[in-house]
Amino acid sequence: MRHILIIGAGRSATSLIQYLLDKSEKENLFITIGDLSEENAQKFTQGHPNAKGIRFDVFNEAQRNEIIPQNDLIISMLPAHLHMEAAKDCLKHGKHMVTASYVSKEMQAIDEAVKEKGLVFMNEIGVDPGIDHMSAMKVIDHIRDQGGKMLLFESFTGGLIAPESDDNLWHYKFTWNPRNVVLAGQGGAAEFIQEGTYKYIPYHRLFRRTEFLDIEGYGRFEAYANRNSLKYRSIYGLEDILTLYRGTMRHVGFSKAWNMFVQLGMTDDGYTIPDSENLSYRAFVNLFLPYSPTDSVELKMRHNLKIDQDDIMWGKLEELDIFNPNKFIGIKDATPAQALQKILMDKWTLKPEDKDMIVMYHKFGYEVNGEKKQIDSSMVHIGEDQTYTAMAKTVGLPVAIAALKILNKEITTPGVQIPITREVYNPILEELATFGISFNEKHVPYMGYNPNNVSG
Amino acid sequence: MRHILIIGAGRSATSLIQYLLDKSEKENLFITIGDLSEENAQKFTQGHPNAKGIRFDVFNEAQRNEIIPQNDLIISMLPAHLHMEAAKDCLKHGKHMVTASYVSKEMQAIDEAVKEKGLVFMNEIGVDPGIDHMSAMKVIDHIRDQGGKMLLFESFTGGLIAPESDDNLWHYKFTWNPRNVVLAGQGGAAEFIQEGTYKYIPYHRLFRRTEFLDIEGYGRFEAYANRNSLKYRSIYGLEDILTLYRGTMRHVGFSKAWNMFVQLGMTDDGYTIPDSENLSYRAFVNLFLPYSPTDSVELKMRHNLKIDQDDIMWGKLEELDIFNPNKFIGIKDATPAQALQKILMDKWTLKPEDKDMIVMYHKFGYEVNGEKKQIDSSMVHIGEDQTYTAMAKTVGLPVAIAALKILNKEITTPGVQIPITREVYNPILEELATFGISFNEKHVPYMGYNPNNVSG
Repeated sequence: MRHILIIGAGRSATSLIQYLLDKSEKENLFITIGDLSEENAQKFTQGHPNAKGIRFDVFNEAQRNEIIPQNDLIISMLPAHLHMEAAKDCLKHGKHMVTASYVSKEMQAIDEAVKEKGLVFMNEIGVDPGIDHMSAMKVIDHIRDQGGKMLLFESFTGGLIAPESDDNLWHYKFTWNPRNVVLAGQGGAAEFIQEGTYKYIPYHRLFRRTEFLDIEGYGRFEAYANRNSLKYRSIYGLEDILTLYRGTMRHVGFSKAWNMFVQLGMTDDGYTIPDSENLSYRAFVNLFLPYSPTDSVELKMRHNLKIDQDDIMWGKLEELDIFNPNKFIGIKDATPAQALQKILMDKWTLKPEDKDMIVMYHKFGYEVNGEKKQIDSSMVHIGEDQTYTAMAKTVGLPVAIAALKILNKEITTPGVQIPITREVYNPILEELATFGISFNEKHVPYMGYNPNNVSG
Repeated sequence: MRHILIIGAGRSATSLIQYLLDKSEKENLFITIGDLSEENAQKFTQGHPNAKGIRFDVFNEAQRNEIIPQNDLIISMLPAHLHMEAAKDCLKHGKHMVTASYVSKEMQAIDEAVKEKGLVFMNEIGVDPGIDHMSAMKVIDHIRDQGGKMLLFESFTGGLIAPESDDNLWHYKFTWNPRNVVLAGQGGAAEFIQEGTYKYIPYHRLFRRTEFLDIEGYGRFEAYANRNSLKYRSIYGLEDILTLYRGTMRHVGFSKAWNMFVQLGMTDDGYTIPDSENLSYRAFVNLFLPYSPTDSVELKMRHNLKIDQDDIMWGKLEELDIFNPNKFIGIKDATPAQALQKILMDKWTLKPEDKDMIVMYHKFGYEVNGEKKQIDSSMVHIGEDQTYTAMAKTVGLPVAIAALKILNKEITTPGVQIPITREVYNPILEELATFGISFNEKHVPYMGYNPNNVSG
């Protein structure tokens, strides 16, 4: 029997746990699910004989030192900043570890020690980061195998609502952490490079400098730039690449409308609003508009944003009921971002029957034998229901598959790592395809980065 | 003989030192000017027998403990974060202290100890902060003496170019630290209150939400909101006030044009530009515009900012020579803000014959005996030349006058303080008037905060 400890049983753990339970008899696995809520942990076992749920507190050192040594591999599904307590004990007790989070400085710092003990600490193996790494590196390595030189890499991911559940003007619902959606793009200018020229977009322009992307069978999407595309030069070995751009995908029209909140200052998380608990939605909006003894909030808003009353943008605002004087924020000491999140959650929360969708789109431009070529690669995955969401599947399955392959010694290269080597991405992508998570690759004419052609 | 030590002999110290030298014989003063440059310090003495210039390093503890005890009062004209070394030694050796800087937490923390020793540590006694405090509190106290209740306080200050030296389209030159001008308004939303309603303006909208102000004989000015007006509620005892707004004054049209830089992201100080040293002005501009294989930087800029080629805004850009491909930033690892500052300094540096101007405008709305009233108070001061600038005079004279009045025991209340008490502001304002620094107060009809009337 091999023992796996999963720390943190949240919404994104469903597919991960299901995969491991399904394999548990054939693969001789015993799964311990540890969560701050024992009830929650036990529910996730589904009463399976090869699983148990326990109350587990990652800050309880005694408990860590009791439970971690009983397992062969630890999966941490906790928020990224909580991994290190468990990681240090995994190192101490000689246990493998898997997370879906970005490698932190602290995690990177134990790389040598992890290698010395022959352990695999696999990180960034969810969807984004995760499937993006694997699917990109597979094509990049393939291009290099042919003697090709990379000229352009653009990569886009979106967590969206599925077409069959898309029933609001924004074509958006929260399928993931709403707070991250409200704060998306903040913290500094987006940096990237296009045809050898560095480009910078400040936050307040980010949602107005979008690009279009067409996916066969799903129509047109738009994307805004992620903050730091340039770090992928070293991660993917693309130091000399002319164009490197990563972005976030949305249904067309979302960004232009979202920009209204950005322009007004409603996404600011840097200060708290006095008496926010008793603030109406209408009064919240008025905080960001000039004072007037006579003009309505509506007229001030239209004038401030320079939109007509028959503009679809206005319809999007009205749909949110944001001018309602009788609905209240109800959160003490709320920042504008928290208040806006509250308003959005009224309308953008998934209904029980709603399905989510993950979309990913890569463009690879390269030169081989003096000829310029391009491969476009896209993936769309739609969730089954609200338990086995596209998000839970695309995050959880790569984690689960990686964990089993580490136990089965199919993945053996030790160290703190991310899934960018053939040893890792080849078998995992292959198995993901059996779950319907696969990429549609097509060769297209090379265009370079040309804004007039970006969706050509 | 009373001894005064002045630490830091910069551009703003000229009038301060001149005042003290002029008074030195009659008042039995000996002035020691300490600066990192001994030559600079000696130049400032003008060979006066009651003064000497020395090399002084505020981080040299031995020197501090030698020089500070030889003096009765220490004036620190260093940047605000460098005051505390001297302040602690002033406390230890029982010496008074004067600065023109905001009271830091560290400075406030020694208040009790300063009081116990009967010392006066006077801060915020330049122009802004300084003359603004004194001129405002004089009117506010007067209103209260009549039994009046404050309803509205708005206060605006600007460091500008004098009309006779105003020869560019921006109607602006650097009369003070250029870096502070480039970074003005950054770091968080502007917060204020108007007619009892809190209002917030994010940085990227700050320069588009201006107000107009008319000053007799000088025409119309505009103002944008300072970051934190609300802290003046407690400082001035205006806890229940309906409208509280502080702003920065500019010549009309500056803010709308400055907003172009803000919108593009050129004022960002948060990241460095690769190979900025060899970047042309034109290439710098292009960093913030979309990539195009064919369109000119000019056309992209006009489209991005939605301005016509015959718009005065475009003339302002051209005047800066910002599209020049043969002028270079020449600064290693420059942030966008540093690069922009370099471009602006080519054009906005004062010529030898240029004069600067300080403008200040207060509005006081109040109710007395059931009647609502308003007092508007304004001050304009124009510099003599590039040595005795309006900035140097309005910063340095209040510092110098306060120092002498402390030595002469006209200001005696001990503690870390700012000039908001009658004991301090009355005699200082009176003496400032003899230097032509005085306010024009007029009673006007009460309007409250009404955006349609703000310049009425």
